[in-house]
Amino acid sequence: MEQEFLHWLRQESNDNTDEVIVGIGDDGAVLKSSNRDLVIVTDTIAEGTHFVLPANLAERRCMLPSIGRKSLAVNLSDIAAMGAEPHAATLNFQCPRTFDLQTVRRLYKGCTNIAKQFGVKIVGGDTNTWDGPLVVSATVIGSRANGQSGWLLTDAVPGDAILVSGEFGGSIHGRHLTFDPRLKLAQHLVSNFRVHAATDASDSLTADLMAIATSSNVQMELNLAAIPISKDVEETESQKRIAAACQDGEDFELIFTVNEAIATKILADATLPTPVTRIGTVIAGPPQLVTIKGKLIPVIGYQH
Amino acid sequence: MEQEFLHWLRQESNDNTDEVIVGIGDDGAVLKSSNRDLVIVTDTIAEGTHFVLPANLAERRCMLPSIGRKSLAVNLSDIAAMGAEPHAATLNFQCPRTFDLQTVRRLYKGCTNIAKQFGVKIVGGDTNTWDGPLVVSATVIGSRANGQSGWLLTDAVPGDAILVSGEFGGSIHGRHLTFDPRLKLAQHLVSNFRVHAATDASDSLTADLMAIATSSNVQMELNLAAIPISKDVEETESQKRIAAACQDGEDFELIFTVNEAIATKILADATLPTPVTRIGTVIAGPPQLVTIKGKLIPVIGYQH
Repeated sequence: MEQEFLHWLRQESNDNTDEVIVGIGDDGAVLKSSNRDLVIVTDTIAEGTHFVLPANLAERRCMLPSIGRKSLAVNLSDIAAMGAEPHAATLNFQCPRTFDLQTVRRLYKGCTNIAKQFGVKIVGGDTNTWDGPLVVSATVIGSRANGQSGWLLTDAVPGDAILVSGEFGGSIHGRHLTFDPRLKLAQHLVSNFRVHAATDASDSLTADLMAIATSSNVQMELNLAAIPISKDVEETESQKRIAAACQDGEDFELIFTVNEAIATKILADATLPTPVTRIGTVIAGPPQLVTIKGKLIPVIGYQH
Repeated sequence: MEQEFLHWLRQESNDNTDEVIVGIGDDGAVLKSSNRDLVIVTDTIAEGTHFVLPANLAERRCMLPSIGRKSLAVNLSDIAAMGAEPHAATLNFQCPRTFDLQTVRRLYKGCTNIAKQFGVKIVGGDTNTWDGPLVVSATVIGSRANGQSGWLLTDAVPGDAILVSGEFGGSIHGRHLTFDPRLKLAQHLVSNFRVHAATDASDSLTADLMAIATSSNVQMELNLAAIPISKDVEETESQKRIAAACQDGEDFELIFTVNEAIATKILADATLPTPVTRIGTVIAGPPQLVTIKGKLIPVIGYQH
């Protein structure tokens, strides 16, 4: 449903103006501004969809800072995937009526901790209690250099190397709450290398690669054996381990494409703040994922 | 609870830097920017709290554009109350699983219509379905002149006239969904007059006047007979009509203070895009609302 809806949204939207450099459909929006362009990202996490709160009150309290942290972290991951730096955030909490002030504070504490870690100012928000489950919406405002090229879903070209940061799979065992958004790596790349397409792996490695393939109208040839698999993947059989890395969601690693010469330089760069691995090559062809033997790779991941 | 929480938030927050001109606690945040300062506002409306969806499917469909419209309108009202112009918006929908694509489109259509009306670009968002009720979070990015003075809750001074736009009371009968945010009036005031404190009447006339009184540490002397009462107020008895105007929420009119000389000019201005009425005077004293005879006026309105 999301793709169809996004397509309709783009037609319906009024963002086709000089002021809006990037509108609906990428990891974030880019607005023209006099000094640096503005980058705006927004994401909601909801109880039952993006996290489960334990029924036990003490366990629930214990988990709330992680939920607050995640609400900002997913947005900071989008900022990284736009090749931008974050500045300010707003937070909207819809809290169950059972939450007292102490409980809301624990939630908020998780937000302020990660905000401080990444130099983001929390500048506003809205806190309500209601009869429903916990919902946290966060919006982050960042910036990138005027007219910065690349970093969009649409920017992959045949011949590009496909690179990823970190490792994939099994984030459900805890990493989906504790991951560090790849802001440092993104800034390192912006400063030193020309990046073509970029996104972050939120839905799954295959789903987010497919988003680049579709938006750029290219094919992705993947060397499945090269995909870095997280120690969080509990499977032992090789095929199942690769499937977990390809299909599990919420890794929040960077996925990006660069030309061959740049790829060689990046892979030789000893100062990268996060390890980067090459997992394939962008080739001409209808938007799909294939193995190096040309076999179709199923796209499986979180469906909105 | 909100005041206590906001107090804690302000201590906890890290927004005390040169970059953040106005942080948590006002209608919006102001960030320093090279050309015009950025203004960021955010607000969530939730089923059961801010609106009720009819159980009947046809009636529900019919109402959805109004809900979408309101989600942006409440934020545009905050932009007006900051003396700012809106530019871009992001929208986050948490939709009940019963919503099909057609239903989500109706909701969104209400957003795009008001966005076009006020020249706002919808640049991003997030749409999820879940088992809970409908929640819409919107964030609007606007701007105001570098270093623009006034328009904050803290800017009222003794001797100021208290002015309001439009009429108050009975918005629950429909106006809470159809109101026009006072952006034109705000821009007219910014261009022509020096405004001290300003806010919009969302919780109630008395609750939002009290917010200015508390933040500015002043007393508000109100001429109750001067308060413009909406035709939507169904009470017939004079006292009850005034009470409705003072205590009903969601009027989304501007409440602002200016010095006496400016007040005279504004009230004589035949080009005001919305009628403005003087309802009282800011005086020295502990933060409370009093009648012209010095009697305490109860502060009643929506409690977060």
